[in-house]
Amino acid sequence: MAKETFVEQIADIDSDFPQWYTDVVLKTGLVDYGPVKGTMVIRPYGYAIWENIQSEMDRRFKQTGHSNAYFPMLIPMSFFTKEAEHVEGFAPEVAVVTHAGGEELPEPLVLRPTSETVFGNMYSKWLQSYRDLPILINQWANVVRWEKTTRPFLRTSEFLWQEGHTAHATEEEAMEETMKMLGVYREFAENCLAIPVICGRKTEKEKFAGAVATFGMEAMMKDGKSLQAGTSHYLGQNFAKAFDIKFLDKDGALKYAYTTSWGTSTRMIGALIMAHGDKRGLVLPPVVAPVQVVIVPIAAKKEGVTEVCRDVYAQLCAVGIRVKLDDSDNSPGWKFNEWEMKGVPLRIEIGPRDIQAGVSLVFRRDTLEKTQIPLASLASAVPALLEKVQREMLENARVRRDGRIVRAENLEELLDGVEGGNFVKAGWCGDRACEDRIKAETAATARVLDEDEKSERCVCCGKKAINTVYFARAY
Amino acid sequence: MAKETFVEQIADIDSDFPQWYTDVVLKTGLVDYGPVKGTMVIRPYGYAIWENIQSEMDRRFKQTGHSNAYFPMLIPMSFFTKEAEHVEGFAPEVAVVTHAGGEELPEPLVLRPTSETVFGNMYSKWLQSYRDLPILINQWANVVRWEKTTRPFLRTSEFLWQEGHTAHATEEEAMEETMKMLGVYREFAENCLAIPVICGRKTEKEKFAGAVATFGMEAMMKDGKSLQAGTSHYLGQNFAKAFDIKFLDKDGALKYAYTTSWGTSTRMIGALIMAHGDKRGLVLPPVVAPVQVVIVPIAAKKEGVTEVCRDVYAQLCAVGIRVKLDDSDNSPGWKFNEWEMKGVPLRIEIGPRDIQAGVSLVFRRDTLEKTQIPLASLASAVPALLEKVQREMLENARVRRDGRIVRAENLEELLDGVEGGNFVKAGWCGDRACEDRIKAETAATARVLDEDEKSERCVCCGKKAINTVYFARAY
Repeated sequence: MAKETFVEQIADIDSDFPQWYTDVVLKTGLVDYGPVKGTMVIRPYGYAIWENIQSEMDRRFKQTGHSNAYFPMLIPMSFFTKEAEHVEGFAPEVAVVTHAGGEELPEPLVLRPTSETVFGNMYSKWLQSYRDLPILINQWANVVRWEKTTRPFLRTSEFLWQEGHTAHATEEEAMEETMKMLGVYREFAENCLAIPVICGRKTEKEKFAGAVATFGMEAMMKDGKSLQAGTSHYLGQNFAKAFDIKFLDKDGALKYAYTTSWGTSTRMIGALIMAHGDKRGLVLPPVVAPVQVVIVPIAAKKEGVTEVCRDVYAQLCAVGIRVKLDDSDNSPGWKFNEWEMKGVPLRIEIGPRDIQAGVSLVFRRDTLEKTQIPLASLASAVPALLEKVQREMLENARVRRDGRIVRAENLEELLDGVEGGNFVKAGWCGDRACEDRIKAETAATARVLDEDEKSERCVCCGKKAINTVYFARAY
Repeated sequence: MAKETFVEQIADIDSDFPQWYTDVVLKTGLVDYGPVKGTMVIRPYGYAIWENIQSEMDRRFKQTGHSNAYFPMLIPMSFFTKEAEHVEGFAPEVAVVTHAGGEELPEPLVLRPTSETVFGNMYSKWLQSYRDLPILINQWANVVRWEKTTRPFLRTSEFLWQEGHTAHATEEEAMEETMKMLGVYREFAENCLAIPVICGRKTEKEKFAGAVATFGMEAMMKDGKSLQAGTSHYLGQNFAKAFDIKFLDKDGALKYAYTTSWGTSTRMIGALIMAHGDKRGLVLPPVVAPVQVVIVPIAAKKEGVTEVCRDVYAQLCAVGIRVKLDDSDNSPGWKFNEWEMKGVPLRIEIGPRDIQAGVSLVFRRDTLEKTQIPLASLASAVPALLEKVQREMLENARVRRDGRIVRAENLEELLDGVEGGNFVKAGWCGDRACEDRIKAETAATARVLDEDEKSERCVCCGKKAINTVYFARAY
């Protein structure tokens, strides 16, 4: 809505990546700081990305048989103490309501940091027989985790997310669900966010508080650090036992269900920014870009220019493209900078000479390439080009990432690797002590296991390796 | 997901309307009580209605130029004291976070009961020049209002809603926005919920805390009571002055903006239930029904029945109908009751004799009429019939309501009117004392003014009337 008179400057991506990130998120209008420390306001340009993410994910959840619902945000404090690991993991960062309606509450209420407990409580009430299973529910909601150090999208006191919670009759079905949703996340990350992800099991140290096993998907950022972009948890019977989620099975026996949970959040917007951004600012993949194409008239006052631009605008709208015609008073150069910073995938320039020649100049934000496309074929060429951009953004990100995965046989090599901005694959003996020492000496953590690859020796102690691990510094 | 073995019973709608409501919302799986008193879990069947409502409303908001965003739920307590009427209205029912991250907070934080204050705070930061105006933002969010007496959808501690917050350069533009959004609400209520609404200005007593003027839309429930289904507020410069929302105008002067806010909530689901429901349970209008058509096979084990039902199912899916094929083991009679209780607009029965004759029996939930429709024409006849149902549900609700609007010239007539389950139109002198006395003696409140109709005398004191008012008992 603002017609600004200068393009904002952003810090240099190579020399100060953290400042570049802060500049980009604030100056492109994605987000702003909220009045309470650690909170964020997701502004319309940022929220439009979230709406596109929601729409794509929600369709996938429904296609895999899940329904949406909404569970209360306020959870009795006592619920958290029912699962021992869960309370240990979440108690330090909960926000607590002690007063309401002018009175002190009989029991303090926690603002959900995650909802396994309240889903568990309701599932125990709803579940009777094996015929009620599986229960497959997702919710889109806000959650609150009180963090000391916060950054927009990456870590804030309140954020938006989806959390799926399912219950099953058998261990096999619950594990199948856990892996299926990890697969849905991977496919979404690759095909919608154009981010190649590494998926795998987390170590005991890194798993979700209360899970039997956590599987994560890790994305490489432009600085070589990793960002956990989604997790899928196999909870076994831990929460079923804590919340009495039981059913009468076919054989007449009363059994505990097996449950799962899986979540992704507005953090994915942070991943998008840092996986694709460059020195000019955001680079958004077409599937989730709020504006896919911007039309910039050149010498807009010359006869016919406005008309042709409007006509192209109408044509692109008609084929379902999210298009903006920037007919503001700013100069074309200013508009170029502005929309490049905002990461719009394609820019179409149309001026008097172009019109005479029956062409337009199309600029690709991701590769910075310009091509001439006949005006008459834009309505078919633009959708095809957007698909190409989407595909090539993923391919290029994959090449970039694969070039930054190195192996290490000892701690020095591991340190060199992560300091060089790489993911480092290495053997690990399975000992928590080695995992801790690696973190202390290199600031890298075990992101996920690669269970298909064998390693000989632990990168830390040199003893026999039982796993191969992706180590990286992480957001 | 539950394959139940008996159809739940609901209380008689005529003899015990409140119990009928409770039975319907719980037994159709719309909602359940949450673990914390006064909270609700919106279950998949209820949430699917909300998703349809959201999708229809969101499209209308975007068509009228609004963008979505997300503002923090936690608001500093001090924000509420900046607008005197606002704090008076909302302070008694706020929930307060006093501790977070294991520490006592320096300032207590309020869970938003509504977000004028936090939008105001951010708008004052973003707004510089007249060129930034209007600011047109909506958010979909949860809000918390601590209520003593609660009922699912109608009044709960936490509920879901949308709240639009806009800022404008002039009083005229802000008032135009206020009325435009009231119009959007009306059109949505009529065409999507099939509920005829009465829209108008609220009295000073009934207006939003902090508004210059509130406009509401009131819907008549089957028991003759009114339900406020949406409100649009003209806030004048009240919040602009409290939060310093200023801009540099064309003439070089620094001016306060004029703001509006408007909201609707999950309460609309309560309106749907009570405006259309009957003794068999829910009656849902097709536009928002989670399932628009249910196919029930008759003698499903007879040759060809399952195949034909599946074929019809596929045909209806293909034309975009939300259809369910109930191929469970329950009897047809059980299924009829179940889906009637759940309010599915159309039921298609297909049995061996129907197949031989090339027909199906189609049952309309709203009128309880049955028609034969050739199997071969279902794919075109069903969408047309759904449109007819949608249209006629509105027409019938309008006839029903119009027959229950009466006039009163004195308090006895007013009392008789509301006790007979009517909306009562009456003259009013404009005095708060009369409004209070009417409420004390009849339990009816002033719902909205009818500014087009003249009345001679105040229904209470007999002095000259300055307004005509719709009085009703209300949810």
